[in-house]
Amino acid sequence: MAVIIGTGLIGASLGCALTAAGYRVHLRDHKVSHARVAAGLGAGTLDPPISDHVVLVAVAVPPDAIADVVAHSPQVYPRATVTDVGSVKAGVLDTLWRRDVELHRYVGSHPMAGSQHSGPVTARADLFVDRTWVVTPHRRSAPHSVEVVRSAVEACRARPLIMDVDEHDAAVARVSHLPHLLSVLMAGQLVSLPERDLVLAGQGLRDVTRVAGSDPGLWQQIVGANSAAVLSELRGIADQLDLLIKAVEAMPDSEELRDQLQRGVAGTRKIPGKHGAAAVAYTQVVVAIPDHPGALAKLFADVGAAGVNVEDIAIEHDPVREVGYLALSVTPEQSDGLIAEMLAHGWAIS
Amino acid sequence: MAVIIGTGLIGASLGCALTAAGYRVHLRDHKVSHARVAAGLGAGTLDPPISDHVVLVAVAVPPDAIADVVAHSPQVYPRATVTDVGSVKAGVLDTLWRRDVELHRYVGSHPMAGSQHSGPVTARADLFVDRTWVVTPHRRSAPHSVEVVRSAVEACRARPLIMDVDEHDAAVARVSHLPHLLSVLMAGQLVSLPERDLVLAGQGLRDVTRVAGSDPGLWQQIVGANSAAVLSELRGIADQLDLLIKAVEAMPDSEELRDQLQRGVAGTRKIPGKHGAAAVAYTQVVVAIPDHPGALAKLFADVGAAGVNVEDIAIEHDPVREVGYLALSVTPEQSDGLIAEMLAHGWAIS
Repeated sequence: MAVIIGTGLIGASLGCALTAAGYRVHLRDHKVSHARVAAGLGAGTLDPPISDHVVLVAVAVPPDAIADVVAHSPQVYPRATVTDVGSVKAGVLDTLWRRDVELHRYVGSHPMAGSQHSGPVTARADLFVDRTWVVTPHRRSAPHSVEVVRSAVEACRARPLIMDVDEHDAAVARVSHLPHLLSVLMAGQLVSLPERDLVLAGQGLRDVTRVAGSDPGLWQQIVGANSAAVLSELRGIADQLDLLIKAVEAMPDSEELRDQLQRGVAGTRKIPGKHGAAAVAYTQVVVAIPDHPGALAKLFADVGAAGVNVEDIAIEHDPVREVGYLALSVTPEQSDGLIAEMLAHGWAIS
Repeated sequence: MAVIIGTGLIGASLGCALTAAGYRVHLRDHKVSHARVAAGLGAGTLDPPISDHVVLVAVAVPPDAIADVVAHSPQVYPRATVTDVGSVKAGVLDTLWRRDVELHRYVGSHPMAGSQHSGPVTARADLFVDRTWVVTPHRRSAPHSVEVVRSAVEACRARPLIMDVDEHDAAVARVSHLPHLLSVLMAGQLVSLPERDLVLAGQGLRDVTRVAGSDPGLWQQIVGANSAAVLSELRGIADQLDLLIKAVEAMPDSEELRDQLQRGVAGTRKIPGKHGAAAVAYTQVVVAIPDHPGALAKLFADVGAAGVNVEDIAIEHDPVREVGYLALSVTPEQSDGLIAEMLAHGWAIS
């Protein structure tokens, strides 16, 4: 039997996921209508639980309220392990240390999932599937409690990752809070722009500013809870921005600008694939570009019919012979099959 | 008859779009293999054109090469209007002023379309459909030339927007070059991060850094061509970043941070809809949240069956009566139909 306190997007989705995994879930929220919507979406029941039977309490309230609710929970549920799903971990733990709390029954956690939407209406049982879910034991947490939290994470089909509290907070400052604040800075500049400028907005601007549309009250609390780590990142970016300004001032000498642009490309390549998959190395199958234009459509059709996923296509040019080649990137396992298929259709493979 | 010089993504897509619209398109590229791929995708022919018959020359070469190619074209094609599709306009025009060029036959332009991929392989005839395509006449351009360019833009099913050259360059510095460089700054910070931090990367980081993966050589040229306007934007963001750092230093007093976060939300709301559509005002239909949880799924099913697009759902809570309401946002034209449908199914509408 589990209790979820707070039925916003994360709490309600957690309820749906645990219910689907066979947990009996009881929902609590001081906004009864939110709990009712969550219950209506299959996140659990509004009936009060039998306190002694509760094995897990998951606190999914706004950041500023987490410490109080976590501190209170061991008294109410005397046998339960208590976790929270807040995005900053050190502050909550500090508060608990200072109070008379059964710390061995608390293990923090942080699912790397969410949305710019809040509230239970958009809750989904599969919100956590294949997502990393950080679990942050501390030196007083009981091994049993860590196991209870890890089991719940696995029941949600997320990937538990054990991390130290401070290491976690520094990491989220770098990969979540800093990009969020840069998005906010960019979006803030738009407020004073003439409407006409914004007609020229493309997908780049939309992507960069999307997260800036998230709940400002929530982000105020997140940044407040992690202000030291966030400050360090903001100062680092301010230094880089100074260098960038000097680089643009120095144009047409563009070495520093080129370096920064290339660092940017390198940085994007370090981000793991969508579900945390490692980047795959591809093999190139190189086909001579046919002389008669109509043939190219047939080439792409033959590649498609081979049932091979082509990850990238590049044109390689031989300036001396004035000919060109298409380099088709495929996984190593697929390259032999593709080559055989292409040869069978009469294509020249280099 | 049209000539397209440069068969990267934009040039090749322009060729496909103009060919589809009935133009006879001739492709030129010093990389013959690129032109051949473009021709193979239906962008036009590699045969040389009859110079006297060419009415439009579209220059789609990299930014640093545009001015030379544009300056050369009126001599080669004595009856043609010449345009380019570069993303910065003033520098090209300045260069042309300084040379002995038939300026009345040149009208610059800039399609607001593209991709982080380059090269003709990903060319598409519909790349420009419903996109804004800026046309930048100058004081020497002939009205006839403006019309030739505007017709070609409309043939690509894009939306022509006449703008002054300097106004255009300032606008793209704000809505395209600045967000690009912020994305580069953020992505550049990732280079030195431990792999473990990057496991925590979520969609926010991916969105903010996506454009930083674009061709650094191209962006070096774009920033170089618009360096004055870009510098002014970078200095503006540096000032805001200073304020943000001071705001986080001042935590837990968070008024300035809240202001910045709220400005960010306001900024995202200023961006027009995906295809430049104006933001729509919605009407709310308010339904009491049913007491018995199972009923909510039926409510959503009934809303779906009504064939109404619900744009947003919010929960409104009445803390005194401990009840709640769902506010369904729909277009004004759809609200009466939705209300009738909900009442017919027995729901209470407030």
